[in-house]
Amino acid sequence: MTLHVFDQALALTAQPGGDFVGTPSPAYWNMVGPYGGITAATMVNAILLHPQRLGDPLALTINYASAVGAGPVRVVARPVRTNRSTQHWVLELWQAGSDGTEDMVTTGTAMTSVRRATWSLDELPMPAVPPPEAVEQVHMFAQVEWVQRYEMRPVAGAIPTVWDGGGSNSLTQLWVRDAEPRPLDFLSLASMSDTFYPRIWLRRALPVPVGTVTLTIYFHADSAQLAATGTGFLLAQAQAQGFRNGFYDQTAQLWNEEGRLLVTTHQLAYYKE
Amino acid sequence: MTLHVFDQALALTAQPGGDFVGTPSPAYWNMVGPYGGITAATMVNAILLHPQRLGDPLALTINYASAVGAGPVRVVARPVRTNRSTQHWVLELWQAGSDGTEDMVTTGTAMTSVRRATWSLDELPMPAVPPPEAVEQVHMFAQVEWVQRYEMRPVAGAIPTVWDGGGSNSLTQLWVRDAEPRPLDFLSLASMSDTFYPRIWLRRALPVPVGTVTLTIYFHADSAQLAATGTGFLLAQAQAQGFRNGFYDQTAQLWNEEGRLLVTTHQLAYYKE
Repeated sequence: MTLHVFDQALALTAQPGGDFVGTPSPAYWNMVGPYGGITAATMVNAILLHPQRLGDPLALTINYASAVGAGPVRVVARPVRTNRSTQHWVLELWQAGSDGTEDMVTTGTAMTSVRRATWSLDELPMPAVPPPEAVEQVHMFAQVEWVQRYEMRPVAGAIPTVWDGGGSNSLTQLWVRDAEPRPLDFLSLASMSDTFYPRIWLRRALPVPVGTVTLTIYFHADSAQLAATGTGFLLAQAQAQGFRNGFYDQTAQLWNEEGRLLVTTHQLAYYKE
Repeated sequence: MTLHVFDQALALTAQPGGDFVGTPSPAYWNMVGPYGGITAATMVNAILLHPQRLGDPLALTINYASAVGAGPVRVVARPVRTNRSTQHWVLELWQAGSDGTEDMVTTGTAMTSVRRATWSLDELPMPAVPPPEAVEQVHMFAQVEWVQRYEMRPVAGAIPTVWDGGGSNSLTQLWVRDAEPRPLDFLSLASMSDTFYPRIWLRRALPVPVGTVTLTIYFHADSAQLAATGTGFLLAQAQAQGFRNGFYDQTAQLWNEEGRLLVTTHQLAYYKE
């Protein structure tokens, strides 16, 4: 059996000191480096593989401090505080530059938790949208590898076809899943949390230079809800709240087809002009 | 001239190795430890005081790993990556336990940035609400010190007066400012980002045990907008998106009186039952 392309991309090898080594996959390449979502998923994978882990991913913050290149990366996931049912992690991604010196290219923190059943409620309902079967798949950015790894069916806010500066809002809603079917887990949830093209391209209908600088993911889903989602679509929704002096935010949600809120996520991106 | 109570609470003393030492202030005490917002502001202060800082606060994530007690804390703010106009920070708060051993009680990361003027736009408008003068001030939680440090005028979603399990949503909107006037800066913006009482208390009209576990703040404001805000009120709005198995999220915004978006902020809190 061949490993799914996503699992190939996330492959990590444990090192004697507790760190992991991996290599960013060309299959999830963005413009000039790995897709931010695959880097986030790699960090989650280092946590999942750690022998001292307590519970499942609950919260993750990743800061893209510097461009990641094509060479091997060293992933550090260090549990710094273990409570009765929660655990706090410090995350680092290191990569050697051309002179062989390692630089810290990504920083982060995470929490894992043992979930206990409680009163629960989704306050933000899934928007009323047509089912994925009723929405046409789009193929965009043919030169951008990671985009080809996902099946995307935009309901609203698809990529502009005319770049005329005439955008009116930054709301995107799309059905998304792995192009090659793969049952949903915390790794693919992390990756799909970054699945939106830049909000400023939509709002301005202008493809200005842009890049995510920090990403936070809250995992509301537990393992049972992941299993129930399986290889089905997620409805992914994203919108910016403010664009100011070179940075804008994005607030986003992912629901499964039955309307269960699986993730709420936020990021800040820089832009030029 | 007497230092403002907020600045007294944030006082830090530089240590030879680059760390800072401070003492959580009783004036900002919550139920069983310092108010989360004052801890966030303390972390920001360590960055602002650091001799190698580049630019102003842009993004902050704080993880409340363990209860903080009344004794001194050691604050570590370490610049781990400095780019041309942005800088990435790793943050730690340490406190000695009863046996004298130091524990890491708070983790975090931050970004600072030199802002440059660009095309800018607030996509999320300030809600239409009555001006602060037209809204009555509430006095609540008389035993909780930090609450007394703020003047709060709720427009919607005030603290329930009947705890009957009959809540219908978790939206709160309130005008807020320092009770003792103090011009707004990044420190007070960080603190006011955590100014909301727990969303689950409003949604359920039940005062279940609760505590913030992680908080992320995006600072959209620049120094000029802070100066323009001065000692005026902020409109603070918060709502949960999902409550699930012991954790709920909160997404929030702060605008100044002229309607400028200053902060977008998110947090995850645990709850019991």
